[in-house]
Amino acid sequence: MKLQDATWQDVEGFRRDCVVLIPTGSLEQHGPHLPLFTDSLIVTAVAEAVEARLTESVILIPTLWLGASGHHLRFPGSLSSDFDSYMGEIQSCVESLLPHGFHKFYILNGHGGNREPNGIAARRLKEAHLQATIGQSAYFDFVKTVISDTLEGPLKEMRHACEAETSLMLYLHPDLVRTGKLRDDGLASDPAVAGMVHHFDEITEQGSYGYATLATAEKGERIFDAAVKQVTQEIDRVANGYFLRGL
Amino acid sequence: MKLQDATWQDVEGFRRDCVVLIPTGSLEQHGPHLPLFTDSLIVTAVAEAVEARLTESVILIPTLWLGASGHHLRFPGSLSSDFDSYMGEIQSCVESLLPHGFHKFYILNGHGGNREPNGIAARRLKEAHLQATIGQSAYFDFVKTVISDTLEGPLKEMRHACEAETSLMLYLHPDLVRTGKLRDDGLASDPAVAGMVHHFDEITEQGSYGYATLATAEKGERIFDAAVKQVTQEIDRVANGYFLRGL
Amino acid sequence: MKLQDATWQDVEGFRRDCVVLIPTGSLEQHGPHLPLFTDSLIVTAVAEAVEARLTESVILIPTLWLGASGHHLRFPGSLSSDFDSYMGEIQSCVESLLPHGFHKFYILNGHGGNREPNGIAARRLKEAHLQATIGQSAYFDFVKTVISDTLEGPLKEMRHACEAETSLMLYLHPDLVRTGKLRDDGLASDPAVAGMVHHFDEITEQGSYGYATLATAEKGERIFDAAVKQVTQEIDRVANGYFLRGL
Amino acid sequence: MKLQDATWQDVEGFRRDCVVLIPTGSLEQHGPHLPLFTDSLIVTAVAEAVEARLTESVILIPTLWLGASGHHLRFPGSLSSDFDSYMGEIQSCVESLLPHGFHKFYILNGHGGNREPNGIAARRLKEAHLQATIGQSAYFDFVKTVISDTLEGPLKEMRHACEAETSLMLYLHPDLVRTGKLRDDGLASDPAVAGMVHHFDEITEQGSYGYATLATAEKGERIFDAAVKQVTQEIDRVANGYFLRGL
Amino acid sequence: MKLQDATWQDVEGFRRDCVVLIPTGSLEQHGPHLPLFTDSLIVTAVAEAVEARLTESVILIPTLWLGASGHHLRFPGSLSSDFDSYMGEIQSCVESLLPHGFHKFYILNGHGGNREPNGIAARRLKEAHLQATIGQSAYFDFVKTVISDTLEGPLKEMRHACEAETSLMLYLHPDLVRTGKLRDDGLASDPAVAGMVHHFDEITEQGSYGYATLATAEKGERIFDAAVKQVTQEIDRVANGYFLRGL
Amino acid sequence: MKLQDATWQDVEGFRRDCVVLIPTGSLEQHGPHLPLFTDSLIVTAVAEAVEARLTESVILIPTLWLGASGHHLRFPGSLSSDFDSYMGEIQSCVESLLPHGFHKFYILNGHGGNREPNGIAARRLKEAHLQATIGQSAYFDFVKTVISDTLEGPLKEMRHACEAETSLMLYLHPDLVRTGKLRDDGLASDPAVAGMVHHFDEITEQGSYGYATLATAEKGERIFDAAVKQVTQEIDRVANGYFLRGL
Repeated sequence: MKLQDATWQDVEGFRRDCVVLIPTGSLEQHGPHLPLFTDSLIVTAVAEAVEARLTESVILIPTLWLGASGHHLRFPGSLSSDFDSYMGEIQSCVESLLPHGFHKFYILNGHGGNREPNGIAARRLKEAHLQATIGQSAYFDFVKTVISDTLEGPLKEMRHACEAETSLMLYLHPDLVRTGKLRDDGLASDPAVAGMVHHFDEITEQGSYGYATLATAEKGERIFDAAVKQVTQEIDRVANGYFLRGL
Repeated sequence: MKLQDATWQDVEGFRRDCVVLIPTGSLEQHGPHLPLFTDSLIVTAVAEAVEARLTESVILIPTLWLGASGHHLRFPGSLSSDFDSYMGEIQSCVESLLPHGFHKFYILNGHGGNREPNGIAARRLKEAHLQATIGQSAYFDFVKTVISDTLEGPLKEMRHACEAETSLMLYLHPDLVRTGKLRDDGLASDPAVAGMVHHFDEITEQGSYGYATLATAEKGERIFDAAVKQVTQEIDRVANGYFLRGL
Repeated sequence: MKLQDATWQDVEGFRRDCVVLIPTGSLEQHGPHLPLFTDSLIVTAVAEAVEARLTESVILIPTLWLGASGHHLRFPGSLSSDFDSYMGEIQSCVESLLPHGFHKFYILNGHGGNREPNGIAARRLKEAHLQATIGQSAYFDFVKTVISDTLEGPLKEMRHACEAETSLMLYLHPDLVRTGKLRDDGLASDPAVAGMVHHFDEITEQGSYGYATLATAEKGERIFDAAVKQVTQEIDRVANGYFLRGL
Repeated sequence: MKLQDATWQDVEGFRRDCVVLIPTGSLEQHGPHLPLFTDSLIVTAVAEAVEARLTESVILIPTLWLGASGHHLRFPGSLSSDFDSYMGEIQSCVESLLPHGFHKFYILNGHGGNREPNGIAARRLKEAHLQATIGQSAYFDFVKTVISDTLEGPLKEMRHACEAETSLMLYLHPDLVRTGKLRDDGLASDPAVAGMVHHFDEITEQGSYGYATLATAEKGERIFDAAVKQVTQEIDRVANGYFLRGL
Repeated sequence: MKLQDATWQDVEGFRRDCVVLIPTGSLEQHGPHLPLFTDSLIVTAVAEAVEARLTESVILIPTLWLGASGHHLRFPGSLSSDFDSYMGEIQSCVESLLPHGFHKFYILNGHGGNREPNGIAARRLKEAHLQATIGQSAYFDFVKTVISDTLEGPLKEMRHACEAETSLMLYLHPDLVRTGKLRDDGLASDPAVAGMVHHFDEITEQGSYGYATLATAEKGERIFDAAVKQVTQEIDRVANGYFLRGL
Repeated sequence: MKLQDATWQDVEGFRRDCVVLIPTGSLEQHGPHLPLFTDSLIVTAVAEAVEARLTESVILIPTLWLGASGHHLRFPGSLSSDFDSYMGEIQSCVESLLPHGFHKFYILNGHGGNREPNGIAARRLKEAHLQATIGQSAYFDFVKTVISDTLEGPLKEMRHACEAETSLMLYLHPDLVRTGKLRDDGLASDPAVAGMVHHFDEITEQGSYGYATLATAEKGERIFDAAVKQVTQEIDRVANGYFLRGL
């Protein structure tokens, strides 16, 4: 069920062990070639495809599109929520539905910068509602191997406006990709250091990180289909229950 | 310009005296006949029509769809943001763009429950950024007379899932209106009292307030066109400047 | 009952269905002719007159005089609470009395800038205490017609240190009015725009808005008496109960 | 200067090295014999007497009457602000005046429960405004010796609705004292423990702590006059400057 | 029991009427002769000695070493927690243990700047958990007379890096005292004013306040032993119960 | 430099391009065999060893031992900070030192539950202080391969009170390990789901997760030495600078 199109009576009649699916995106710079809404567009497409496959066991809410993007703010057009408001919106969605008996929630993320606040929001919810079932992950975390296998450039994982993300956009929204502006970009520390907090105006020249020039719609389709398949399996398992067994 | 489709380089090239238009909606019960997303759908339609008419002087951001809807929460499916997060998201949008020179912002509201937090968000922004230009109003506040003239039922103003709102949805999204479930609803205090905070489960039977059975697509078109015209005029004036003159 | 003069044993003996009346004012510039405490003085006078008429069904708390006045801060002497503290004080008053069985509260406002935070405070209280009865309005909202009929200048509504407010002060506290400094003031946008957030140093020359030179004590008395009568009727109805009936 | 009666032009003309005097009180149970407003009444009387003696070097703001009184809430009628809002209001008053050049502030307290939040508010202000002069103390801390010398009962210091406080009220507001209900009250730990946080329903029978039956107006006058004298001296020194010299 | 060395099964087996002892210190400048950790070192030593004497009736948690030290921040190396986080950590410790049945808590302070936030934290906890037993005091408040009797300099009370504190460090951690840098320091207001908030860069030359040159290990031992004895007695009484009796 | 032992004059003399090292631990259940302070003990040992190797380029602050451990709270003795206070303390440490010219900070984590709040704290700091250098990582993230190579049980990564963590404690603090209580523990979802937020009372029987029975001091030494070496290298690079070069 897409919540936005339902009436309250539709929701009243829905099964209570369904999974409320909460997509989180961003509106932030994605280099010279991708639109600001890239993350929101991709995660929405994944979430809608999952809902289409599991329409009886999913309540899909609209994408929370305003992400935590402080590291992109030096590029004009990027919008970033303060962390507290961002987390508060996720918690508000969950706590609006809990009193009506819905008790399974999954935050499906499409933007790396949301990872930490999604984690804290989910933990706060679990601590406050011990009996609730709460999960959260990014769509691209479900398909790390597929991404690694698909990409041709030396970076074998999802980065930012990279070969993978550009491919997904070429598949899903080719009209929004400025193909004339594709370029490889990104700086690495030398010697290597780990865990440094760098903003994208420090580690890129024009905002993207990776090998966008290698992107193709075919790669995007392959990653997208795999993500939909894996997320669908996950949500189905959460909806239908799983056991905790000894290691 | 629709911000979501732009790249950061597009934004970089945009005129700084344009108006950043921030639509605010809700996802909340709208009686048995209208979908939960009604407010967000209407305000988005108005905002997009305005942007289409003023594309060189408007930056339209995506609708902040999660509203302040605590008074609807007893109806399942309604989502309500806590007030702080709701206001924080508006402020975050504005404060993401201010450092890049954009300095005119207009919050266009589509949900009565957002009126007070929109007002406080706008005032906080103005107090913190004295040189900025900040405005906020609901689209239906621009067309009170048209609404009053158009409606046939005894309630001559915009209420909730009422003759006016249902008409707008019949015009904009007829497929989402459950025409078989239209009904008049709403309770009034007797004797009359003013300013009481009532939740919609207290003052309605099934969630709508007004004479939905009188709604028609034609009324919706009339209200919509008037709203687009008036909001367009407003935004154009904000973009192109206005003077303050003695009374 | 005036709460400030009571002992806890007096309160212990009071009827639980009385209305706790919470006046909210301000201490802010009111032009060259009115004292900073104008809003607090007027709303306190109204509230005390109401309490005198309904002493068995009202608990009057002292006026929360520190208002939300950020739009006046450029004039020296104005004090403005941050919004959170302002709302927190209202909520604290209510939540101090709720555990003792008092469950009807009415916030009587005397300052336009408090309207939005009063609204949010009332809504937060209602959401947290679903069985409580909460109302809020400004005293001048009860007498819009009387104000419109009484004023001679072209502005037919309550503004700031205007014909109406100055009249009220001439009636209630003539010694505090600097009659030698009365002047008309105020700027309007041209062409007209709606909903813009302007500070009073932007839209006035010396801080007042309206036709103060037309003020008289007689007009003040008329408005005051009408306000006391209407607010008394309202509070009486809230104390003695009202029904919700179909439209 | 009493700020409440002034216009903004009066304030504009005032000397910037005056001391802004901020009285803090409470509205809380004071046993069966004293009104809820006792603390606010006394501290206001002291502050007004000080202002009368130093009218050219003091800006007296109205008493912040809603105190931190959580330890009295089990007695009906007591109102307690949450700590954050309470501190926020003090900080708001100061930060409203700082931009106009006023830079000396003194928080004059009349309620023991405000001591800690007054301290933190003052420290936060000093940390944020290093060049400002901030002080805070209770009026009764200035006259410990006088209190000790004046009281006849075994408790030789200011407690709650005690011999001292009741005497002050008999002097200042005899009409508000229920002389027929005077009683000694209060429990002490046995064996003695230090620093325990006890609420007044735990450590008293009817809310007062001390020997109220020994109170007289004469004792009240003596304490009051001494407090006014000492606080006046303090404020005068703050206004006119003092040096920091080696021990 | 030292909580840090215990397992959860050890805690599971512990008596529920024991006192959870929460030491609070600081890391802040202590003049040229004492290390930044002085307060934390001393209060930890007192707390550990108390725990050693009352091991069956105390749960000692590790020292909350990051104090409220904003008044020392102009000296490099001082760390100061914002007040909210500082208080939140104390409250978090208590609220982690309350659900397991532990209900007696004592905050043992070693830093003057923590006094007010410790007081508010304790009051918030008591207001939220009415049945809990909460106490808080500084170790040096238990031995005011001993300190006064022991010190030879004109300042007869605990100040900052003074004769008393330096003596304690000479006794407990002589290796950390820079004896070559001992000096007397501190400025007093002339004429005397009370309650002014001064930072240590305003009222000292090099950060200490008092007569450090008079410090000896023997004085430190005397103060330390007395503090341990008195705090032990206090905690024992809290653990084993006390009565509240009429004055 | 160990900050706790230094005086402010020592800090005054220290080089400004050193790295301020902030260890973060926890006090939480670690199964029946490890003490509550396990995470804090290990990360402190690593941090102190790093400081010993880089004493001229590191300022080591004391371990922030109170972690974010809500998922362990059902086991008695676990203490968990609320997230806001936890993050606030990290930010406070950094913002106390920034005004004195120190501008490189590294948060060294020893507890998985701190990962997300450490990340947000670091990002907030970077957003507020664009020129600062901020890094954060867990000590065990530096030695994933060593851990994987060292462990004999089927779990090849750091979990909780597992083969790796128990080995580290057997090496560092063998006296604190209850060797008689070692046991394997932990439940896995079947079928597998990703990203679910489970508390440790849900996914373990007695609180540990992994193959503690396989732990040895030799394995602990190997992991510890590798971690110290790698973290030392990292901190040295941060202190002495690194470049950002094209991919």
